Amino acid sequence: MSQLRRDPVTGRWIIVDITAPKRPEEFELKSQVKKGGVCPFCSGNEKMTPPEIEAVREPNSQPNTPGWSVRVVSNKFPALKIEGDLDKRGIGVYDMTNGVGAHEVIIETTDHYRDMADLTQNEIKNVIFKYRSRSLDLEKDKRFKYILIFKNHGFSAGASLEHTHTQLVALPIVPKRVKEELKGASTYFGYRERCVFCDMIAQELEDKLRMISENKRFVAFCPFVPRFAFETWIIPKRHSQNFKSIDDMDIDYLAQILKDTLVRLKVVLKDPPYNFIIHSAPIRDGLNEEFHWHLEIMPKLTNVAGFEWGSGFYINPTSPELTAKYLREVQV
Amino acid sequence: MSQLRRDPVTGRWIIVDITAPKRPEEFELKSQVKKGGVCPFCSGNEKMTPPEIEAVREPNSQPNTPGWSVRVVSNKFPALKIEGDLDKRGIGVYDMTNGVGAHEVIIETTDHYRDMADLTQNEIKNVIFKYRSRSLDLEKDKRFKYILIFKNHGFSAGASLEHTHTQLVALPIVPKRVKEELKGASTYFGYRERCVFCDMIAQELEDKLRMISENKRFVAFCPFVPRFAFETWIIPKRHSQNFKSIDDMDIDYLAQILKDTLVRLKVVLKDPPYNFIIHSAPIRDGLNEEFHWHLEIMPKLTNVAGFEWGSGFYINPTSPELTAKYLREVQV
Repeated sequence: MSQLRRDPVTGRWIIVDITAPKRPEEFELKSQVKKGGVCPFCSGNEKMTPPEIEAVREPNSQPNTPGWSVRVVSNKFPALKIEGDLDKRGIGVYDMTNGVGAHEVIIETTDHYRDMADLTQNEIKNVIFKYRSRSLDLEKDKRFKYILIFKNHGFSAGASLEHTHTQLVALPIVPKRVKEELKGASTYFGYRERCVFCDMIAQELEDKLRMISENKRFVAFCPFVPRFAFETWIIPKRHSQNFKSIDDMDIDYLAQILKDTLVRLKVVLKDPPYNFIIHSAPIRDGLNEEFHWHLEIMPKLTNVAGFEWGSGFYINPTSPELTAKYLREVQV
Repeated sequence: MSQLRRDPVTGRWIIVDITAPKRPEEFELKSQVKKGGVCPFCSGNEKMTPPEIEAVREPNSQPNTPGWSVRVVSNKFPALKIEGDLDKRGIGVYDMTNGVGAHEVIIETTDHYRDMADLTQNEIKNVIFKYRSRSLDLEKDKRFKYILIFKNHGFSAGASLEHTHTQLVALPIVPKRVKEELKGASTYFGYRERCVFCDMIAQELEDKLRMISENKRFVAFCPFVPRFAFETWIIPKRHSQNFKSIDDMDIDYLAQILKDTLVRLKVVLKDPPYNFIIHSAPIRDGLNEEFHWHLEIMPKLTNVAGFEWGSGFYINPTSPELTAKYLREVQV
């Protein structure tokens, strides 16, 4: 069982593993993602993962056997477990609760040697369909308040398995970083009566300085305030607060622009490590109409150091105007 | 000239290098701190750094020549530059200002092959004296609002030079992360009429579960809510909001407990990469009496991944109760 603990000063939560904690010697720094050995995400090894939750499958193929092209399973080493109730309590000045939640893995292809940028638009579409269906299924559980969808690609970005996959975590608490975004969007809306993200999109489309590409429904650009070099956002043109509400046509256009952007990053930076995160409003989000969901891609080209940890300031060794130019000029 | 830019949603600031931006091919990931070559921080190479600001020197030795034991210089590649005025302005929805500030380096020893844990208590004392004198000197500049003192040790923690050193940045803005801490401490004070850090110290001394060591003036413990495995805080027992106000006796005791803690971490984790950061109230801090300065040491044993970036939640693979036990049991 993991435990959630709340910092009494900043309100930051952490998840602590108290049942199978790592020993000091287990922290030896590995220089790369584990390669070789048997991969639990490859076709034929379905029994190595927890049971299948959903999959895109050939007709007549059985769950937990080959015949799938996208497969959703529970994380074998979940940060949070689905069983149990939230049990908030205090210990002196501190607060804690049980680690209730869901932690799922979306395996994007059977092929160990292709990453997301190598998948076809149609394959990526099927992956995004799973993001949506899992979101819609998990939000029925009233204990959950937030669904976080993210991808770690490459060792420096935190990937522990090489085989391409996305993770989904359902949380019993709206996380601090999401609250900050909601508050910021709400403050802006409060005095402008407009969505801050809609205003950004309008400015980016007009300035063109930081644009990478656009299609009928989405825009990809390097944000004016990137924490990381080559940070890139993909955002729907139409105001919409929650990822889960995307329609089938949106998914088609999102798959197109996501593949296009990942290919551009791969060409310019030679397969960089990166994280991407879907920023969306909380599950019960009636009050968050001023938010606008989007996907943030953060290449991990430099190490985060004491200055960033101490200040929340980020030092970026290049400008988004320049990185957008590099990405825009790639012949896709 | 660097530029400071403010995110219109979260209020986060970043520093962008717009004069000498890195090209994509310059981001190749290095696997370790640059070794070999000529070190600008070694004795005899004083001319390789910007001119000396302060130093602990043998009598009759000249600035920018050998004969020093601690040396303070400007950072050759500063994140912010001392010249110019703050020039805040908007660009559409965005805000920016010039990158005015100071960025100094405190070289802790002439010896290339000793890190801070290897220095004597007396040597560390002289380093801390420089932290204080530089803080007191820089705060006279009315453009500056915050002084951040931090150390990056090891490549994964962001160190670009192997020779042990600490950095000091004077900022024209109180950083977001500091504001969060001030607000949290102030909220707690508001309903308890007590300092949250003083309450934590009392609880840690009573529980003993997360204690590492203490001396007459300081306590070292693993916090209840560590973001990172083996995270350790050193905090003065007496309530004091700002690091700069430490007296000579405090410096003596801080040097003792800092060396003791760094040695323990080095023994248990075999010279881990780490950052440490002095968390202190802003320069003009009359309003922040509820804050309590302290030093946070964060070993970097795991990579920060999409989950942490997306949520502000941290997953810690071990508990502070256990890491404190490991550190406590080291025979120093």
